[in-house]
Amino acid sequence: MKQLGKQTWQFTSRPAIIGASAVVGPEEGEGPLASDFDFVYDSLKMDESTWEKAERRLFEKAVRLALINSGLKQEQLGFFVGGDLMNQIISASFAAKKLGTPYLGVFGACSTSMESLTIASMIVDSGGAKYALAGTASHNCTVEKQFRYPTEYGSQKPPTAQYTVTGSGCAIVGKNDGTQTGPFITYATIGKIMDFDIKDPFNMGSAMAPAAADTITAHFRDTGLSPGYYDMIVTGDLASVGLPIAQELLAKEGIPMEQTEFTDCGLLIYDRETQKYVIAGGSGCGCSATVTYGHILKRMKKGQLKRVLVVATGALLSPLTYQQGESIPCIAHAVALESGGEQA
Amino acid sequence: MKQLGKQTWQFTSRPAIIGASAVVGPEEGEGPLASDFDFVYDSLKMDESTWEKAERRLFEKAVRLALINSGLKQEQLGFFVGGDLMNQIISASFAAKKLGTPYLGVFGACSTSMESLTIASMIVDSGGAKYALAGTASHNCTVEKQFRYPTEYGSQKPPTAQYTVTGSGCAIVGKNDGTQTGPFITYATIGKIMDFDIKDPFNMGSAMAPAAADTITAHFRDTGLSPGYYDMIVTGDLASVGLPIAQELLAKEGIPMEQTEFTDCGLLIYDRETQKYVIAGGSGCGCSATVTYGHILKRMKKGQLKRVLVVATGALLSPLTYQQGESIPCIAHAVALESGGEQA
Repeated sequence: MKQLGKQTWQFTSRPAIIGASAVVGPEEGEGPLASDFDFVYDSLKMDESTWEKAERRLFEKAVRLALINSGLKQEQLGFFVGGDLMNQIISASFAAKKLGTPYLGVFGACSTSMESLTIASMIVDSGGAKYALAGTASHNCTVEKQFRYPTEYGSQKPPTAQYTVTGSGCAIVGKNDGTQTGPFITYATIGKIMDFDIKDPFNMGSAMAPAAADTITAHFRDTGLSPGYYDMIVTGDLASVGLPIAQELLAKEGIPMEQTEFTDCGLLIYDRETQKYVIAGGSGCGCSATVTYGHILKRMKKGQLKRVLVVATGALLSPLTYQQGESIPCIAHAVALESGGEQA
Repeated sequence: MKQLGKQTWQFTSRPAIIGASAVVGPEEGEGPLASDFDFVYDSLKMDESTWEKAERRLFEKAVRLALINSGLKQEQLGFFVGGDLMNQIISASFAAKKLGTPYLGVFGACSTSMESLTIASMIVDSGGAKYALAGTASHNCTVEKQFRYPTEYGSQKPPTAQYTVTGSGCAIVGKNDGTQTGPFITYATIGKIMDFDIKDPFNMGSAMAPAAADTITAHFRDTGLSPGYYDMIVTGDLASVGLPIAQELLAKEGIPMEQTEFTDCGLLIYDRETQKYVIAGGSGCGCSATVTYGHILKRMKKGQLKRVLVVATGALLSPLTYQQGESIPCIAHAVALESGGEQA
């Protein structure tokens, strides 16, 4: 591993994603990416007695499918790096208990997807394991209940609100021994906390946009690359309100984002025309995880995308601190995925 | 970095702790380790309007003192790896906001102290940064309120209950360029989730003991060392109920713990005779962090201890899951600290 600039790591051995999974709920299964997911639950309850148990089931299913898709046996897996949005990241911890491998719990709100992938890549790149699993999950009903209002209340939401994705995505990072076909993990840019004093839990996109812009700027400053290096730069879940703000901030920084396709996982996962209840778009750590490990990896495998920078954004929103009048600190972590061949 | 066995990493470059800090509240300041702490607050409120703000202040103070003690400037610090017990690890995130460095949030309950030190060591060992800060904090009033009952209720506690330490400990890990005097970080053993179906949030020591024993067993299996290699093996916060259980479990595994001094941070930090309110002893992520970064490092600097294995235990207790009838999954991560010289 090599540090580039201040915030970026280059994974010099280019660890590979040797298997991944994306498992979603019924609403994501009605969206435009439905066919890219490995499994779609037809009920939010998933035959469990609580929403939290449903979220855990979702996560455990994704872990299991990632193992199957990678062709690995459970005992070959070295480490599990995971987290989620629940207090005390209980879904990840219970999934880790079932899996039985050594476990590192992480929390970066919705940026957990790329934070866990970064740490798993670092473990593999630096010789700490042959295989490490990164994963995260979110469930609409657990998250809305914990951070805003239980879905069952039916409370009204403003036009800036986003819809928490019910989904879990996992990826198994493997040591690059020359036989893998990729995609390979080449860079990670670790974000700083950005806080522009937004205090509205129904406006996460605006809160997170500066963090996304800051991490993207840092990535290009540190690597010396330009946006045109990537076929796609995709933010975690800025959705329809946050993405234009990030675009504007990046334009002010002079980053030529017009060189690439710049989009957002929260916009890709739902059809906002037919699925009006998602309002501004998707959110939750399952959003960037399922879009990346379901949709984007499949497009890379098909050769439609060669290099993608996934910039997972996280609003480190705590109901307790915003009730105490605090703003919402945000962060974004970026990971570069590249198909075979050498780096430019 | 080198993987030993299944759960252990050897940090081959032997990164050094170049500065550390331990900041505590008034009760820890009345305990036997008082003189080892860098700063003692004389009030739990710390001039803040909420307990959560006090915890954050504690954390920020420890971060600042670790920087001062290391002689580094803020801008020299590469990364901050931190977490705490609060929902959404808000204390760490707000401390990261103030610090302004790239940030990785982690959660391992009270094992967060050694989880963050492990990841910071991995970053430095693998070339990801010259300096990385690891830190954690807990506050008696925030933790009791969130996980059990607000302290102000004055509710009775059973004899197995532990007392959450008000304290924050930080360590700055630096690349070993041959000029440092240590202590050096040589091994980390990552724990698995252990769950023996304990459901009582007032009995964390018993819940965590199997995790501590499992990680210690794994450490010696993976490294081929024996307990006599260490002058001290210290668990995170098993306290008076958990430590004998861990001892018994290790005896059953045939690990000769009598070769070393085997003790617990939760027993070291308070005087249970004069501070009867701590009941079974200390807990909270501030417990192992302040004892390690305050007390143990100072004993190592004085030459009283040469090799110490710190086994931070974490009860991944969620009020929500135990209200749903779930047991408490536990984990322990061990980090080996060694004074100068070469490894045996």
